[in-house]
Amino acid sequence: MTEKTTAALEKLRNEIDTVDQGLLNLLRQRLNLVARVGEVKHNAGLPIYAPQREASMLDKRRDEAEKLGVSPQLIEDILRRLMRESYQNEKNVGFKQVNTDINHVVIVGGRGQLGDLFRQMLSLSGYQVHILDADDWHLADMLFDGVGLVIVTVPISITCNLIRQKLGQLPEDCILADLTSIKLSPMEAMFETHSGPIVGFHPMFGPDVTSLAKQVVVVCHGREQEKYQWLLEQIEIWGAKLVEAEANKHDEAMQVVQALRHFSTFIYGVALFESKADINQLLQFSSPIYRLELAMVGRLFAQNAQLYADIIFAQTENVEQIEGYFENFREGLEMLKSGDRKLFIEKFDLVADWLGDFSAQFQQESRVMLQTAADMKVN
Amino acid sequence: MTEKTTAALEKLRNEIDTVDQGLLNLLRQRLNLVARVGEVKHNAGLPIYAPQREASMLDKRRDEAEKLGVSPQLIEDILRRLMRESYQNEKNVGFKQVNTDINHVVIVGGRGQLGDLFRQMLSLSGYQVHILDADDWHLADMLFDGVGLVIVTVPISITCNLIRQKLGQLPEDCILADLTSIKLSPMEAMFETHSGPIVGFHPMFGPDVTSLAKQVVVVCHGREQEKYQWLLEQIEIWGAKLVEAEANKHDEAMQVVQALRHFSTFIYGVALFESKADINQLLQFSSPIYRLELAMVGRLFAQNAQLYADIIFAQTENVEQIEGYFENFREGLEMLKSGDRKLFIEKFDLVADWLGDFSAQFQQESRVMLQTAADMKVN
Repeated sequence: MTEKTTAALEKLRNEIDTVDQGLLNLLRQRLNLVARVGEVKHNAGLPIYAPQREASMLDKRRDEAEKLGVSPQLIEDILRRLMRESYQNEKNVGFKQVNTDINHVVIVGGRGQLGDLFRQMLSLSGYQVHILDADDWHLADMLFDGVGLVIVTVPISITCNLIRQKLGQLPEDCILADLTSIKLSPMEAMFETHSGPIVGFHPMFGPDVTSLAKQVVVVCHGREQEKYQWLLEQIEIWGAKLVEAEANKHDEAMQVVQALRHFSTFIYGVALFESKADINQLLQFSSPIYRLELAMVGRLFAQNAQLYADIIFAQTENVEQIEGYFENFREGLEMLKSGDRKLFIEKFDLVADWLGDFSAQFQQESRVMLQTAADMKVN
Repeated sequence: MTEKTTAALEKLRNEIDTVDQGLLNLLRQRLNLVARVGEVKHNAGLPIYAPQREASMLDKRRDEAEKLGVSPQLIEDILRRLMRESYQNEKNVGFKQVNTDINHVVIVGGRGQLGDLFRQMLSLSGYQVHILDADDWHLADMLFDGVGLVIVTVPISITCNLIRQKLGQLPEDCILADLTSIKLSPMEAMFETHSGPIVGFHPMFGPDVTSLAKQVVVVCHGREQEKYQWLLEQIEIWGAKLVEAEANKHDEAMQVVQALRHFSTFIYGVALFESKADINQLLQFSSPIYRLELAMVGRLFAQNAQLYADIIFAQTENVEQIEGYFENFREGLEMLKSGDRKLFIEKFDLVADWLGDFSAQFQQESRVMLQTAADMKVN
């Protein structure tokens, strides 16, 4: 590099430093303002996530960006990232307590990650929360005395038995809820065991979320909805989106969404292991899309074996989805071995037609994800 | 909402609008400054992507953010997004031409997406580029007369035959290169056909990238590296990272990275289609991780069936990886049907141990991806 080049670059980089200082100051200001919006909303008991307001604000910014010759997508991406930050900061403010009359809450299994998240959110909303974990059953009578809400969040494999054996003596007006990732059998167990209000939830997110904003929570209505309606409102105030579902339909969809997915990822990890794949080399050669794939495999194996065993073995009587996939794979392998390109293209086009407009939408979404993966790349 | 709440929110939102105006102005300024850095680098022939400079700038910003009480990750994410924007804008400036002595370039198959990208990048760097597509073979003699570089980027299924049948008469000192996603057989074909300099590339990215910055290009050295060294430097000036590999090792890794991956995704799409899955319902129930999965399926089927047939059928003599996965799946399914949780957990732990530190790294990466997926969610 010539001296002139070095000097020119140095000067420009100093100017960039100054702009970045300004940027940081504005980010600080914006986070403060949004925190104050949060406080106003908190006092008024409004949900922190307002989809329409968010969409119209983004539209406005996109227009303004265009006028300045800044790409609309750039400002949208930056503001979405900033909003995430603000949602996470909401936790520092706390949340409005929807039901101020209710007695204390007991979370059975509250030392798990999901139980801990709900404990935290309920506490931040002013409820008095007690944990009842595996070692605490000698305290059960005391904790259940006058309890207003019991939330069960224990491993799937023991959920139904625990409900039947341990939760038969709750106060008549206590709400009994669970957070299990399958819904039919825990709901049945709750119905058989408790005669008061019952509701089932499935929080559709991993243990590493730091805010419920924009996350989906599936609700299966059980009994006496009017008595637990406040809890639904409370969850919405935390920013989550409630999706109502029938327990059996939910469980069917979960076969596709969860069991098959986790199982395939598990098998992929096993296949990598057995072929003694060189992960470093794979990473070197990997495109962003494959890096993402590997990340998903690593993510699964970084977590708890028991947890995934629970999810995958939860409905062993019902492995049709996985068997169906296996059959499709067998047929596909035969097609591959016989070199039948024509059949491949026919099937490809069938599926592409069936997916229709979803394909374009998915391609757009995946492009954004892959760009982010590329942005992240450091080595 | 009370009037007081409405008024308070209105006031805060106006203040946020003002901050956002400032933000937009600073973004515009920053993009301008980085564009000027690009011009200086362009004139000096420096690569646009400088990993170390980037890392040290990010470290500095993270420190500054921390002092202001802004999360370091927030400023890093925003700056990475901004850098992507700047890399894309580099195209408006053009790139330094490393080799000003070379005669014109011919891209065989230049009307495909990848060929078009290379045509664009070479033109932006001052080279005279001609396209030779399927219908242009009557012009071949004219185009090949005195040609300095021929890049082959046609479907895998015809690459080797095309090289052997059509490229036997290139000038002795012409560089022959290809962009095929497998390397051994095209390299062999080039060696047999052309006696001058030879080099194989595999650009490791999808057709929808808009900049080569940070993208990986695999290089397989062929013959007379000193004669094509300028081309490697040129590709680095475009911002790409070159990874050297032996053709056979590359192809082996691609069996795992590409063929198995694409094939599994294809089968997953077929399985969804055959089970007549309700995509709308799946999306409703889907966690960010599953949404991402679906996006990857949709992405594949939104693209060209021929292209994927080419990739998947390219090495049909070598389907061991896919067969291995299939066998693992069969064993896994038996384990599932027999309810053998113990075996599941044993295997899980084996793979987790084998992955070792990669697991934590992957979990961190996937967390960032999933957060971005959640940021994007609009419905």
